[in-house]
Amino acid sequence: MSILIVGTVAFDAIETPFGKTDKIIGGAATYICLSSSFFTKNLNLVSVVGEDFPNSAIEMLKNHNVCIKGLQIKKGEKTFFWSGRYHNDMNTRDTLDTQLNVLESFNPVVPEEYKECNFLMLGNLMPLVQKKVLDQMKKRPKLIVLDTMNFWMDNFLEDLLDSLKEVDVLTINDEEARQLSGEYSLVKAAKVILEMGPKYLIIKKGEHGALLFNDKEVFFAPALPLEDVFDPTGAGDSFAGGFIGYLEKTDDISFENMKRAVIHGSAMASFCVEKFGTKKLEELTDEDVEKRLQEFVDLVQFDISLV
Amino acid sequence: MSILIVGTVAFDAIETPFGKTDKIIGGAATYICLSSSFFTKNLNLVSVVGEDFPNSAIEMLKNHNVCIKGLQIKKGEKTFFWSGRYHNDMNTRDTLDTQLNVLESFNPVVPEEYKECNFLMLGNLMPLVQKKVLDQMKKRPKLIVLDTMNFWMDNFLEDLLDSLKEVDVLTINDEEARQLSGEYSLVKAAKVILEMGPKYLIIKKGEHGALLFNDKEVFFAPALPLEDVFDPTGAGDSFAGGFIGYLEKTDDISFENMKRAVIHGSAMASFCVEKFGTKKLEELTDEDVEKRLQEFVDLVQFDISLV
Repeated sequence: MSILIVGTVAFDAIETPFGKTDKIIGGAATYICLSSSFFTKNLNLVSVVGEDFPNSAIEMLKNHNVCIKGLQIKKGEKTFFWSGRYHNDMNTRDTLDTQLNVLESFNPVVPEEYKECNFLMLGNLMPLVQKKVLDQMKKRPKLIVLDTMNFWMDNFLEDLLDSLKEVDVLTINDEEARQLSGEYSLVKAAKVILEMGPKYLIIKKGEHGALLFNDKEVFFAPALPLEDVFDPTGAGDSFAGGFIGYLEKTDDISFENMKRAVIHGSAMASFCVEKFGTKKLEELTDEDVEKRLQEFVDLVQFDISLV
Repeated sequence: MSILIVGTVAFDAIETPFGKTDKIIGGAATYICLSSSFFTKNLNLVSVVGEDFPNSAIEMLKNHNVCIKGLQIKKGEKTFFWSGRYHNDMNTRDTLDTQLNVLESFNPVVPEEYKECNFLMLGNLMPLVQKKVLDQMKKRPKLIVLDTMNFWMDNFLEDLLDSLKEVDVLTINDEEARQLSGEYSLVKAAKVILEMGPKYLIIKKGEHGALLFNDKEVFFAPALPLEDVFDPTGAGDSFAGGFIGYLEKTDDISFENMKRAVIHGSAMASFCVEKFGTKKLEELTDEDVEKRLQEFVDLVQFDISLV
């Protein structure tokens, strides 16, 4: 039992209405790993960084039970860098700078001992890179989750559609679900997208929560209403990490258990946004997570006796 | 045990991306009454219409157990008319025409037998008119719910703030909560608004659900994900009607029961938007309502055993 996580490990520089960071540690896989680590110790990472990536950050990942044997460190090259500025609503942002660096020629190599992982999390990356990882697996994982974004829909739609045929769960946001399906109604969008291959679709609506669809059922998890959202970066990845981490821990991929996994994902996302970058996830305790889960229970549970 | 409902009874003409209506029956109180009528038979209406208001519509209200003794019918005058066009997102709209007509000089008169109602629903109206109703009550109702909108905040804020001191539950949408409080975060907005008088605040977020706050707790009810939203007109009023109707029926104003009431309100709102105007609420059966409530249970209930 273990998870293979593929995605970016990167530097970010972030501006929000609450402040501004220098270069800090970011990347989809970083958030996914940190978030998953609260539920499972069997974390394997495939990613790439440059020589400039600090040892302290690699140690931090190792301290969170992440095996970094699949993390390529490219001599003489630089780590992927993204810089963005969030608007006042915290839902929209401008990209200020993107330096692909090591990502440009990233050829993922899955170490032998990862090739039989039960859970595969394909974090947001070029669809062809995600596919290359899929193709290296020795046996089909029990659950494959793929995260993607509008950029790949705009520019590599064919590749993305190819990968979608092979995954179990697709996670995208509401605008991306509309773009991918051509339907405005998310219910209709889900129907169209589930025809493309995935058995489950998670539509992330940021501060408005998340929807989990299969071909018959739908489940809704709210976002926790927070006094302040400091930095939304990594919220979706933290969600994915909590989701797959909980599924691996419980080894149960029924729809009922996926509901619980979505709540765990939402709890992790709610932490992520409370501080800049990965700071909150790094300092979190198991007790914090338990307490937050109870807040979700209190937020949505009600008792109606129906005849 | 009974409810007094005050609000507009009106003509609407509506355009949405799905079509266009001629003059149809609308008005906040109409939706509130219809929606409440699925939970209680003790409905009393205070409102005003003109001579042009059709008898058939008055009969329709009576058939839904609405006592219309407090409905003034003004000879030689015309009924309030509103016309609007919804944008593609169905969340924003342009007002095309507003003819106040009988509303301009509306002086609400509460019939003697209504003056001891236990539940008072002050639908969206000029704050001074809402206040005049409050002042006519012989004893303080067990629960006073007030609905309002940004127009009154822009133009009659002092009057509104006066009324807020006397109500138990305020219902507004997210933008209005931000405007009234001066806070962007809805959690912070709720704190500010609860200081203004209401013991409970319901923030309606349209397709994103509704939040119920008191000074210590928060509850979230989703909107039902629908394939098509035909016409959002009256959704907020249908919500209010289901909310107060359920509270009257159960005669329990605890926070736990208010959660259930919010779910009932959300269920009624989800029906309202499925057809133009009041059509769906008029044809609805009790079985439809039970079934919809079960859909809400299925949509949000999950079972996490926490230590």
